[in-house]
Amino acid sequence: MIGRLNHVAIAVPDLQAASDQYRTALGANVGKPQDEPAHGVTVVFIELPNTKIELLYPLGEDSPISGFLEKNPSGGIHHVCYEVDDIIAARDHLQSEGARVLGNGEPKIGAHGKPVLFLHPKDFNGCLVELEEV
Amino acid sequence: MIGRLNHVAIAVPDLQAASDQYRTALGANVGKPQDEPAHGVTVVFIELPNTKIELLYPLGEDSPISGFLEKNPSGGIHHVCYEVDDIIAARDHLQSEGARVLGNGEPKIGAHGKPVLFLHPKDFNGCLVELEEV
Repeated sequence: MIGRLNHVAIAVPDLQAASDQYRTALGANVGKPQDEPAHGVTVVFIELPNTKIELLYPLGEDSPISGFLEKNPSGGIHHVCYEVDDIIAARDHLQSEGARVLGNGEPKIGAHGKPVLFLHPKDFNGCLVELEEV
Repeated sequence: MIGRLNHVAIAVPDLQAASDQYRTALGANVGKPQDEPAHGVTVVFIELPNTKIELLYPLGEDSPISGFLEKNPSGGIHHVCYEVDDIIAARDHLQSEGARVLGNGEPKIGAHGKPVLFLHPKDFNGCLVELEEV
């Protein structure tokens, strides 16, 4: 069912410093910051040859990653995103297997303009899993 | 400098359950457990079309992931692994940029039989980074 790893998201306490470090120390292809008000984050995508790293920084008062950065002040790996062909079929299958979908269970439009869902980390080895329909 | 994302490693409290879940609930191509005594882990690789997920479970008394699982009993994302062409050149460049290499700074042979190094997570937004020469 799951296809490509679309991205790995890393929450960072300083988006400029993290972008500079990936560009300079790690020599990667780093994009420009993009505000995603609907998701409460500013993101920077790092293009690797086979997938992307998504740097996440809180945007606004109710950012879903503020709590994560309070618990992890240096930052940390926040989630992985797997691609699926049909997000509704994927959701229904996962729910039938006992996995919990976060929020109201309906897909939202994600940072790439595609429908996304998040699965409960307690059901996936402490790993927050995003599914994105491609 | 960094190339492909070689894998994302997830430490899990139950390797069989996690393997079954990736196979059944997520419909992925899940390999067989491989003991890596030199690294103190048993690993299961999950082949995605563009990269791999590496499930990690402690092996032996002094496993480097036992402490991680004590702190994160449900498991969690443990590290990301980026490919490099020349691990010594990569190490020297990163050290010149102020990044710390774990251990004695010399590459070890990793789970794929290739030289690997780990970078200090405090220097990389709380994210443990493995470099693998390919």
